[in-house]
Amino acid sequence: MKTIGYAAHSADSELVPYHFERRDLRANDVAIEILYCGVCHSDLHTVNGDWGPQPYPLVPGHEIVGVVRSVGDDVKNYQVGDHVAVGCMVDSCQHCDQCQHGEEQYCREGMTATYGSPDRIDGNSTQGGYSKHIVVREEFVLRIPDGMDMAKAAPILCAGITTFSPLRTWNVGEGTRVGVIGLGGLGHMAVKLAVAMGAEVTVISRSKSKEKEAKALGAKGILASSDEDELKASACAFDIIIDTAPVKHDLNVYTPLLDVDGSLVIVGQVGPLEEPLTIPLVMGRRRVAGSLIGGIAETQEVLDFCAKHDIYPECEMINIDQINDAFARLAKGDLAHRFVIDMESLDAA
Amino acid sequence: MKTIGYAAHSADSELVPYHFERRDLRANDVAIEILYCGVCHSDLHTVNGDWGPQPYPLVPGHEIVGVVRSVGDDVKNYQVGDHVAVGCMVDSCQHCDQCQHGEEQYCREGMTATYGSPDRIDGNSTQGGYSKHIVVREEFVLRIPDGMDMAKAAPILCAGITTFSPLRTWNVGEGTRVGVIGLGGLGHMAVKLAVAMGAEVTVISRSKSKEKEAKALGAKGILASSDEDELKASACAFDIIIDTAPVKHDLNVYTPLLDVDGSLVIVGQVGPLEEPLTIPLVMGRRRVAGSLIGGIAETQEVLDFCAKHDIYPECEMINIDQINDAFARLAKGDLAHRFVIDMESLDAA
Repeated sequence: MKTIGYAAHSADSELVPYHFERRDLRANDVAIEILYCGVCHSDLHTVNGDWGPQPYPLVPGHEIVGVVRSVGDDVKNYQVGDHVAVGCMVDSCQHCDQCQHGEEQYCREGMTATYGSPDRIDGNSTQGGYSKHIVVREEFVLRIPDGMDMAKAAPILCAGITTFSPLRTWNVGEGTRVGVIGLGGLGHMAVKLAVAMGAEVTVISRSKSKEKEAKALGAKGILASSDEDELKASACAFDIIIDTAPVKHDLNVYTPLLDVDGSLVIVGQVGPLEEPLTIPLVMGRRRVAGSLIGGIAETQEVLDFCAKHDIYPECEMINIDQINDAFARLAKGDLAHRFVIDMESLDAA
Repeated sequence: MKTIGYAAHSADSELVPYHFERRDLRANDVAIEILYCGVCHSDLHTVNGDWGPQPYPLVPGHEIVGVVRSVGDDVKNYQVGDHVAVGCMVDSCQHCDQCQHGEEQYCREGMTATYGSPDRIDGNSTQGGYSKHIVVREEFVLRIPDGMDMAKAAPILCAGITTFSPLRTWNVGEGTRVGVIGLGGLGHMAVKLAVAMGAEVTVISRSKSKEKEAKALGAKGILASSDEDELKASACAFDIIIDTAPVKHDLNVYTPLLDVDGSLVIVGQVGPLEEPLTIPLVMGRRRVAGSLIGGIAETQEVLDFCAKHDIYPECEMINIDQINDAFARLAKGDLAHRFVIDMESLDAA
């Protein structure tokens, strides 16, 4: 199938219109017309080559929402017209222990990422959601619940599941004391999701400048990490801290805020962190962990959860020809939370 | 009660004989004649002032085994002649949540350490086990199981519980794949205990020079952390790694060895570690944690466990007048596993 997208042709080039082919439908494939695609900071990192060399031309995008336009012969769960979504993965081995218990993100053979990964059958590099169409095997297609706002749902596919999964893994519920470091794309979703789970949520940020916003999202308030006294007064105050800080940082500021047996969970790939001290870990059996997106079943769960609780990311809608400006603003941190591309704007390209 | 011990009078002085008073028995106190006391690396760190200023003169020692010589009026569980032990703590608040569920080491008010802590009632600095007697409230007195070798039991009170507690907390059992970094006082106990729990244990060490010893302790063998190929082949090979490395080290060597959801547990206070990378944490939901000794009930449990499974630390017996040489050897790492002081040698001092 011929389609069009926006691709980077090298690590230092802007995204430009790119005509390419999506594969012919395999028996278990679903062809989707993409209506919206969220813009994730990892799109920018990847096309810039920050995380290693890429197979250019590369179409990024892994927060994909659209409508089914055709299905392969063996597809059971989707039909033409269904509202669907695709997240960060489009395939995995499906037979290892991780895939078997629904954690395809930790597939023993390595999951196939939505863009920049070799397809497991034909070896061609996958291309992402900054495009008009995508073809994905049905096991990696999610269902958009009835009545859900499709445009605003897009960032749930990465920012949503990335924060939802650790909240579930670490059993956040009624009364859990949750800290959220950062209030960007991931952080603001962590707040909304944890609040909806009944947790008592505090945003941890350099200053209190975003306190009004934090409260509007349902948080109790902001703990200013630049304020030594406030940090001291908040020792042992959290059961879990979701760490969305996007740059190198010093965990020693945060680990003493965890209660005994508490966990700080890093959800971003930020390279090396400052040297951690062992004392706050040892003295309170505290833990530092990482977490990578979530499995397919859990991604469906977060979509359903958001629909049920009327939770949506805060989105700034853009047209596809604004993507390079959006990337520049993302690099500077000059946005409230999440850009979403209205893919209708691609028709003119 | 008049007694004698060996004390440091400053951070840079050797230990010398020291006559001092143990408190008169309170109603819930037990007076113990100390027969054996293990020598822990933290004794050396503490008297050297490595962990902050100390209230000199200071008698170290928190791996204490002895016989009850008298009891206070309200003591219920011990009588004269009982074989008993004291570990790293001699008191705690007894009413906070941590104390209530038997984790006095994480007492909200701070536990009272066996030496160098202010007593909760009279404020005098506690003095440790390199001495002829000690007086301890009965809640912090452990029972030496019948038939247990009292000399060799001493290091269980710190080296034993420090490794037993994380093995229990992280549910090590039949078939658990346990890695143990280091084969010193703590490491060799971690191996013995994990093997007795049914785990499949591998020692992780710079070289394979101690492979014969590791196998004699029940380990499968040694993974040489200096061998890149071996490290690669052991990716995801462990459910838990007990990290007893006593100096600054690079966690990035070890975290990829953890399986998905695996934990590396640091049991020593080694100050700052090298800068950790987020990728191995995020890509496998791996965890880095700390753990501090264990609670009183769990310390009794490890004594009982060791008695039942005939597990003893490897001990080199010394006389008290050899303690300064022993410290020098400890500082150089020039010992197999653990020194134990035969306190009978104190009579001549």
